[in-house]
Amino acid sequence: MFKITHKSTDCQARAGIIHTDHGDIETPIFMPVGTQATVKSLDSNDLENLNAQIILANTYHLHLRPGEDLIAEQGGLHKFMNWNRPILTDSGGFQVFSLQHVNTSPQQQSEIRNQKSEINNEHSHLVKIDNDGVEFKSYIDGSTHRFTPESAIEIQHKLGADIIMAFDECTPDDKDEKYVREAMERTHSWAERCLKYHKSQKSKVKSQKLFGIIQGANYENLRKESAKFISSLDFDGIAIGGESVGFNMEATKQILDWVIPIIPENKPHYTMGVGHSPLDLFEIVERGVDMFDCVSPTRMARNGTLFVHPKISKKHRIDITKANFKNDPNPIDSECTCPVCLPDIAGRMETGKNYSRTYIHHLFKAQELLAYRLATIHNIHFFLDLMKQIRLSIAEDRFIEFKKKWFTT
Amino acid sequence: MFKITHKSTDCQARAGIIHTDHGDIETPIFMPVGTQATVKSLDSNDLENLNAQIILANTYHLHLRPGEDLIAEQGGLHKFMNWNRPILTDSGGFQVFSLQHVNTSPQQQSEIRNQKSEINNEHSHLVKIDNDGVEFKSYIDGSTHRFTPESAIEIQHKLGADIIMAFDECTPDDKDEKYVREAMERTHSWAERCLKYHKSQKSKVKSQKLFGIIQGANYENLRKESAKFISSLDFDGIAIGGESVGFNMEATKQILDWVIPIIPENKPHYTMGVGHSPLDLFEIVERGVDMFDCVSPTRMARNGTLFVHPKISKKHRIDITKANFKNDPNPIDSECTCPVCLPDIAGRMETGKNYSRTYIHHLFKAQELLAYRLATIHNIHFFLDLMKQIRLSIAEDRFIEFKKKWFTT
Repeated sequence: MFKITHKSTDCQARAGIIHTDHGDIETPIFMPVGTQATVKSLDSNDLENLNAQIILANTYHLHLRPGEDLIAEQGGLHKFMNWNRPILTDSGGFQVFSLQHVNTSPQQQSEIRNQKSEINNEHSHLVKIDNDGVEFKSYIDGSTHRFTPESAIEIQHKLGADIIMAFDECTPDDKDEKYVREAMERTHSWAERCLKYHKSQKSKVKSQKLFGIIQGANYENLRKESAKFISSLDFDGIAIGGESVGFNMEATKQILDWVIPIIPENKPHYTMGVGHSPLDLFEIVERGVDMFDCVSPTRMARNGTLFVHPKISKKHRIDITKANFKNDPNPIDSECTCPVCLPDIAGRMETGKNYSRTYIHHLFKAQELLAYRLATIHNIHFFLDLMKQIRLSIAEDRFIEFKKKWFTT
Repeated sequence: MFKITHKSTDCQARAGIIHTDHGDIETPIFMPVGTQATVKSLDSNDLENLNAQIILANTYHLHLRPGEDLIAEQGGLHKFMNWNRPILTDSGGFQVFSLQHVNTSPQQQSEIRNQKSEINNEHSHLVKIDNDGVEFKSYIDGSTHRFTPESAIEIQHKLGADIIMAFDECTPDDKDEKYVREAMERTHSWAERCLKYHKSQKSKVKSQKLFGIIQGANYENLRKESAKFISSLDFDGIAIGGESVGFNMEATKQILDWVIPIIPENKPHYTMGVGHSPLDLFEIVERGVDMFDCVSPTRMARNGTLFVHPKISKKHRIDITKANFKNDPNPIDSECTCPVCLPDIAGRMETGKNYSRTYIHHLFKAQELLAYRLATIHNIHFFLDLMKQIRLSIAEDRFIEFKKKWFTT
């Protein structure tokens, strides 16, 4: 399913192609997140126009609403959301377990929530875990649900994404080594059960690739052990999960340095929840990661934080709601080629060439729905276009040079 | 500026063309409302794709935020909102005066607000009126503002719409004849001042058409007197305003029957705030109205009320949030040709041909931003497409027959 087309000579960055029944995905790739079967504020046509090659949807959320059976009845997730390109579903593990950690401070919980997921934390004491699976209550109506490795795969079979994930326990960083080892061993046992169940159903379900997930929090020995174990199984790809991943980039880089040498080179490498900034993208690609997803570009867009090229701001972002953009006729980013910053091909606007910062500032101040849409289009385009340039730089073996250009201006 | 191309032989319906600097408008026409320089949830490209020929923006709202001076600095409303087709701005009269009427019951106020405008009624006692103009407080920050006929035109000159409106006093239906006469006479005096000021500025501002507004509430004598007076002035078009207009269709039809015979045939006839349902469109077109606007199709969309053809429902609408749409793979309206109901031209979706009722129901339940966008696209398309068919029926002199087909199935 995966073919490496280019390898960098001065770092671990590589470019490749993942084949799926809904088309090819060029890697390294950023995957926009469509939590509830929609990338917030965009329709599937918008995503096609932005050249999104694959999007992510959340098993946890879709199980709770509208339910996998209803989506299956409607012909699966692709048809349900009118999107005919590849989809990846997570297993629900991250969402279920981020509800559980009552030892985490409210501030940390809030940060995790804001950074990594879109869950309602009210029922954080309502999760019960055992070696067979996990019981939790719906944040929507308080009803009780149970995920096991088998049910998590079954749900994902019904949703019908091209790439599905093993059910894992995502352990928080503040747990001691003993707990993290227990959780990791549970994750390993669940990984075997997921694979076994997935294979047993292969004749009944259409082609879906199953990825395993490495856990072990921030313990070097556990991460390496987990990388070895998950790599030894017959997964189509290998993911690196955990609370720190994406959220704490220093820890993320450390974890990657531990595990990447262990993971088979010829399988896609996926870091779950990474992509809070342009720098994050470069850092993980440099370490040999092929796939990543993050809600940040879309969530930040809805808060008015818009990504820009280094020439515009060394921080690579502006807050369009600030007063200095009230009277600024420029586009968000004069280096950007997105439909918000540039006129369309027909050049229809003789009086104006783009949506100005002034207009977008106004839309945010007036809390107009269009603000969220234009900002999301810009940020998604920004990430996808940067990834396209990163892929080109790998193909031409000048990735490190390209990275330097971005961060030393 | 206005040319009648077809007249019905069995009613007053007529078709025509209004010429503006930003293109021609085919009448009769429904004008989507972009209160704060955006038709809520849509961008200008969406509106072009929906074949919107003209949109409306609100002087009152744009004066308060971001201010006409800022919009003028940015090159005017067309450039500000990236829309190069015709725009009409109201004068702010309706919004200012619907804040004033403390004698109106809260329930009535609420209904007026819901039906006709998008204003915040908190400061309803903060409006002071005299023969020179009106003072009011901003619903955003409580600051004091004053509109006079001259300033309302000046603001509209700065905004730069193709069609602008005289400043009028919109009297509520519960006022006695004495008050309504006083208000009407004030409106007449203001109409003359608007025209005078507009003409005095003609050398400085670009070509803008100025329409006068007939008032007189539900008094036959006053409505006829107002129709005669406003028709006697050198306006480019004649509007019929008032609290009842659009909100109470029986009163609206009565008022039209009084005033249409008085208004010059060769000027566009505009009813302000009409278009709550398909029936409303037919009723006013039948009485010789050429232009109308209403927030209902867009506001109802955001509440999940979607218009459908008679074959689908005799009520011409469905509430997509109802449980019976939870598992319904059909499009909103199988007779509809909007981008939500039909696949795009490229037919890109082999697995799905449209967004299903199931999916849109899910988006509303999950309070996803895409719900409002898809619903708005559908409702706007529905109204604009119906108007296109109405124009065709007039051109072929079968309007009454077409109306019957819609309402006797």
